[in-house]
Amino acid sequence: MKDLRGAIGVTVTPFKQDWQVDLDTVRAQAERLSQSDITGVFPCASTGEFPHLSMREQCDIYQATREGLGDSKAFIASACAPNLQQAIGYARQAKALKADACVACPPYYYALTQEEVAAFYRALAREAGLPVILYHVPFFTTGIDIDTVEMLMDIPGIIGLKDSSANMKRIAHLCQLHVKHPAFLLYSGTDDCLLPALAAGVDGSMTALGAGAPSLVAAVYQAFRQGDLSRAIQHQQRMLPLLKAADVLPFPLGYKLLAQAYHQLPMTEAYHQLLPAQEVQAARSVIQSLLERAQCQG
Amino acid sequence: MKDLRGAIGVTVTPFKQDWQVDLDTVRAQAERLSQSDITGVFPCASTGEFPHLSMREQCDIYQATREGLGDSKAFIASACAPNLQQAIGYARQAKALKADACVACPPYYYALTQEEVAAFYRALAREAGLPVILYHVPFFTTGIDIDTVEMLMDIPGIIGLKDSSANMKRIAHLCQLHVKHPAFLLYSGTDDCLLPALAAGVDGSMTALGAGAPSLVAAVYQAFRQGDLSRAIQHQQRMLPLLKAADVLPFPLGYKLLAQAYHQLPMTEAYHQLLPAQEVQAARSVIQSLLERAQCQG
Amino acid sequence: MKDLRGAIGVTVTPFKQDWQVDLDTVRAQAERLSQSDITGVFPCASTGEFPHLSMREQCDIYQATREGLGDSKAFIASACAPNLQQAIGYARQAKALKADACVACPPYYYALTQEEVAAFYRALAREAGLPVILYHVPFFTTGIDIDTVEMLMDIPGIIGLKDSSANMKRIAHLCQLHVKHPAFLLYSGTDDCLLPALAAGVDGSMTALGAGAPSLVAAVYQAFRQGDLSRAIQHQQRMLPLLKAADVLPFPLGYKLLAQAYHQLPMTEAYHQLLPAQEVQAARSVIQSLLERAQCQG
Amino acid sequence: MKDLRGAIGVTVTPFKQDWQVDLDTVRAQAERLSQSDITGVFPCASTGEFPHLSMREQCDIYQATREGLGDSKAFIASACAPNLQQAIGYARQAKALKADACVACPPYYYALTQEEVAAFYRALAREAGLPVILYHVPFFTTGIDIDTVEMLMDIPGIIGLKDSSANMKRIAHLCQLHVKHPAFLLYSGTDDCLLPALAAGVDGSMTALGAGAPSLVAAVYQAFRQGDLSRAIQHQQRMLPLLKAADVLPFPLGYKLLAQAYHQLPMTEAYHQLLPAQEVQAARSVIQSLLERAQCQG
Repeated sequence: MKDLRGAIGVTVTPFKQDWQVDLDTVRAQAERLSQSDITGVFPCASTGEFPHLSMREQCDIYQATREGLGDSKAFIASACAPNLQQAIGYARQAKALKADACVACPPYYYALTQEEVAAFYRALAREAGLPVILYHVPFFTTGIDIDTVEMLMDIPGIIGLKDSSANMKRIAHLCQLHVKHPAFLLYSGTDDCLLPALAAGVDGSMTALGAGAPSLVAAVYQAFRQGDLSRAIQHQQRMLPLLKAADVLPFPLGYKLLAQAYHQLPMTEAYHQLLPAQEVQAARSVIQSLLERAQCQG
Repeated sequence: MKDLRGAIGVTVTPFKQDWQVDLDTVRAQAERLSQSDITGVFPCASTGEFPHLSMREQCDIYQATREGLGDSKAFIASACAPNLQQAIGYARQAKALKADACVACPPYYYALTQEEVAAFYRALAREAGLPVILYHVPFFTTGIDIDTVEMLMDIPGIIGLKDSSANMKRIAHLCQLHVKHPAFLLYSGTDDCLLPALAAGVDGSMTALGAGAPSLVAAVYQAFRQGDLSRAIQHQQRMLPLLKAADVLPFPLGYKLLAQAYHQLPMTEAYHQLLPAQEVQAARSVIQSLLERAQCQG
Repeated sequence: MKDLRGAIGVTVTPFKQDWQVDLDTVRAQAERLSQSDITGVFPCASTGEFPHLSMREQCDIYQATREGLGDSKAFIASACAPNLQQAIGYARQAKALKADACVACPPYYYALTQEEVAAFYRALAREAGLPVILYHVPFFTTGIDIDTVEMLMDIPGIIGLKDSSANMKRIAHLCQLHVKHPAFLLYSGTDDCLLPALAAGVDGSMTALGAGAPSLVAAVYQAFRQGDLSRAIQHQQRMLPLLKAADVLPFPLGYKLLAQAYHQLPMTEAYHQLLPAQEVQAARSVIQSLLERAQCQG
Repeated sequence: MKDLRGAIGVTVTPFKQDWQVDLDTVRAQAERLSQSDITGVFPCASTGEFPHLSMREQCDIYQATREGLGDSKAFIASACAPNLQQAIGYARQAKALKADACVACPPYYYALTQEEVAAFYRALAREAGLPVILYHVPFFTTGIDIDTVEMLMDIPGIIGLKDSSANMKRIAHLCQLHVKHPAFLLYSGTDDCLLPALAAGVDGSMTALGAGAPSLVAAVYQAFRQGDLSRAIQHQQRMLPLLKAADVLPFPLGYKLLAQAYHQLPMTEAYHQLLPAQEVQAARSVIQSLLERAQCQG
C-alpha cells in the first residue's frame, strides 16, 4: 500500500455547457497533478460535487483521473452517498478501479444518531473490500463524535479520518488518539488552517488547494517538515487571501475558479451554483490576480 | 385545477428484499387512500425517501400510485434534488405525469444563502411547467426564511409552502401573509401539531399520518371544520402516542411500520435505516398496539 | 392556593433616565392589570429584564406590583439566576413576599448538561419553600429536554413549565404528559402562537401581551373557552402585526413600547437595548397605530 | 503601557464554604504567578466565573491579585456584564485599579444582532477610559463576526480580541487582519490548540492553564519562539490529557481542580457546578495524577 500521509488534493469537477462532465479537462488536470509535489488525488469529494454526479459519471471521472495521473500518486475515491447500499456500491467500484482507499461521509439528508453513524461505518468497512476513511463534515451532513471515532478506530479496514470542521480543539484531541493508534491517519479538510493542523499533529490534508494550487500547499508541507516554522507560517498565510476570495462564492465555485486560474483549464463552462454570470466573471478576475500575488510571495 | 386544501398524505416507499421498489404495494396503498377522506397523495417526499430513489424509480412510483388512486384525489409529485438541473428534470417528469403540483426543497447537501434559495425557486418556477410548492424542512436542508417566502409568493407558478419546522411562531406569521395573498397555500408538515397549525390558519397539511393512518387525520379536519374544538383536540391527542413511538426510530422507519400496521401491507421487507432487526420487531408490536388503541378512541 | 391557569401577564420594567426603576409606573401598571381579565402577573421574567436587575430592585418591583395589584390576581415571582445559590435566594424572597409560585430558568451564561439541569431543579424545589415552575427558554439559556421535564414532574414542589420555544411539536408532546400528571401546569411563553398552544392543550400562558395588552389576550381565551373557534382565530390573528412590529426591535424593547402605548405609561425613559433613539421613535409610532388598529378589530 | 503579548493566565475564583471569595487563596495564587514565566494575569474571566460575582467581589479579587502579583506582570480586568451600563461600570473600576486593559464579551442572556454588538463596543470604548479587548465566546453569549471585528479594529481604544471559538479557520483569517493592523492583539482562548493558534499567527493567549499550570504553557511559548517545532508540539501535546480530564466536568470546575493540584491551594471548598461530591473527589485524583505525568514529560 502506498504511503497516504501528506497532501491529498481534492479536485473540482468541470462540466461542459451541455452538463456533461468534461473528461478531457479532468485528465489534463490529473496530468498536471502527477507533476506536482502532492501525495495523492481525491476526485468526487465535496469539492468535487459528488451529490451532483451519478455513479457512471463518478466512474468516468476516476478513469480519466487515473489516465492522467499514472501510477505515481495515491488515488482516493469517494463512497459518499445518501445510504449504506449506495455507499457500498461506490466502495466496490473504488476497489475495482484499484483506488488506495475510499472516503465516506455519514449518509446525508436525514439526520443520524451516533449509533447509526457507527453502524454505517461498521457495515461499510465489512463490505467495502478496500480501506475506508471516515469523513467528518458537520456543515453538510451528520458529524462523527470523537467517541464514535475512537470506537471505529478499532474496526479493521477503517484507516483514518478526514476532519473538515476546522474545530482545532477537536482535531487536537483526535491527534492525541495517535498515542494508542499511531497508524490511524488524520487529515485536515481545511486549507485555511493547514499549518495549525500540522502543528496539532495531523498526518496530512485533503483539501481543494492541494489540487487547485498544489505548489502553494506543498510549500507549507516542505517548510513544516524542515522545521522551518517562520517560512511555513509565511507559506500558510499567503494562501489566505485566495481562500477568503474563494469562500465568498457558493461552495465550491470559488475553488473551481481557483483551479481554472492555476491550471489554465476550463472549469466553469457550466456550474450548479446559483450566482449571476457577471458576479462569477468579477470573482474570476479577483482570484486570478490574488493567485498571481500569492505565487510571487513564494 | 383541483382544490389542494386539506390533508395531503405523504406516502412511505416500500422496498423488497432485493431493494427493488415494491410497486404492487405502492399501488395497493394508493387504492386504499383513494377510499379515504383525504384530499390528495404525495409520494417521494422526505417520508417517501426521495434521496434513496432514482428518477426512474420515482417515475414508477408515481405511475403505480396513479393506477391505484384513480382520478379522485389530488396528486402531488416531488421535485426535491441536490441541484436545480435535477429539480427541473423532476418537475418536468411531474408535469408529464399530470401531477397537480410539485414540491421542492432547497437543493440539499451544500449550505445555501437565501439569495441562492430565491434564485433556485425563481428558475424552477420558470422552467417547471406546473405549479411549484416551496418546502421548508430546516432539519435536512437549508431553510427558507419568512422574507424569502414573502418575496417568492409574488412569482407566478409558486402556489404554496409546506412548512415542516413545527415552529408555530413562524407558521403563525406565515399565515398572516394570507391577508395579502389569500390563495397562497400553507401546509403544516408535522402531524404532531396539525390542529394547532389549523388554528394558526394553515390551509392544509402534508404529513405521514395523512397517508399512513388517514382516518385519524381526517377526523381532526372534520371536527375542526365543524367548529367542534373539544372533539378536534381529542382527535389530535389520540395521534400523539403513535407519533412519539414512530419518532423513536430513525426517520422515517417508524412511519413505515405505522403504514404497515394500518394498511396491512408489507412496508419493511428492506429498509435503509440502520437499526438492528430485533429492535424493529419490537417497535412494530408497540406501534401496532398503539394504533389499535388510537382507533378505539375514535 | 390560587388557580394559576389562564393568562399570566409578564410585565416590562420601566427605567428612569437615571437608571432607577420607575416604581410609580410599576405600581400604576399593576393597578391597570388588577382591572383586567387576566389570571395573574409575573414581573422580572425575561420580558421584565431580570438580568439587568439586582435582588434589591427585584424586591422593590414585587412590592410596588403587589401594592398596585391588590390580592385579586395570582402573583408570580422570578427565581432566574446564573447559579443555584442566587436562585434559592430569589425563591426565598418570593416566598417572603407571598408569591403564589416562582419561575426559574436553568442557570445562565455557562452551558449545562441535562444532569445539571435536573440537579438544579431538584435542589431548588427542596430549598425554595414555594411552588417552582420550570422555564424552557432555549434562545437565552440551556433548555430543558422533554425527558428531563418528565422526570422533574414527579418532584414535590415542581408544579409546572413555561415553554417559550414555540416548538409546537414539543409542546404537543408535553401536553400529552397531562395524561399522567393532570395537575402539572403547562404554559406557552409565546403570544404569537397562543391559540395554537391552547389547541395543543396548554393550561395557560405567560406572555408579554398578557400584561402589555391584556384585553387582546383575554379575548382569545374567552372565545377559546366558549368553543368559538372562528372568533378565537380572529382574536389571535389581530395580535400578529403588533407582535411582528415588536419583534423587529432588540428584545424586549418592542414590548416596552407596546405596554407604553396600551397603558399610557412611560416605559422607555431609559432602556438597555442598543438602538438609536430615532429608530425607537419611529417604532413607537408604528406600534401605537398597529395597536389602535388591533383594538378596532375586537 | 506593558507589552501584552504572550501568555495571559486566566485565574479561577476560590469560594469558601460560606460562599465568600477566599481572598487569601487569590493572593497566594497571584504570588505564585508573579514567579512564573507568563506575561500577565486576568481574573474574573469566564474561567473566573464573573457571572457569579458582584462588582464588590470582583474589586476585592482584583486588589488581592494585585497585592500578590506586584507590578511585574500585566494585569487585565473583566468588563463582562449583561448590559452596557454595567460593563462601563466594570471598565471604570478596572481603570481605577490601574488595570492594563479590560476584556468585555457582548452583553449576555439576550441574543444580540451584530449591529448591537458593534454599538456596545463603540460606546464601551468611548466611556471606558482604558484599552478594551473584544471577547468572542460564542458558546456562552452572542459572538462577534469577523466583519464586526474588522470594523471595530479602527475604533480608538479597542486594542485586541480574545477568541475562544477554537475555530481555526476563523482565527487564521483574523490573523490576516494583522496585515492592516499589526498592533491589534489576537489571543487564543483555548489551551487545547495553543500551538496551532500560534502557528496561525496569534499574539498570545488568555487561557486557564496559563494560570492553572503556567510552566506547561510557558514551555510551549518558549519552544515556539525558539523555532523548535518538534519540542513545541511535545509541550503542547502533554497538556491534552489534562485538558480532556478537566473538560469532563461542568466548566470551569475541572480547571479549579487543576489549579488546586498545581498550586497546592484550596480552590474547591465550595463550587457552583452541580456535580455530586464523590465525582469531584474522583476527578481530583485523576487530574492530580495526569498533572504529575505531564510535569514529568517536561
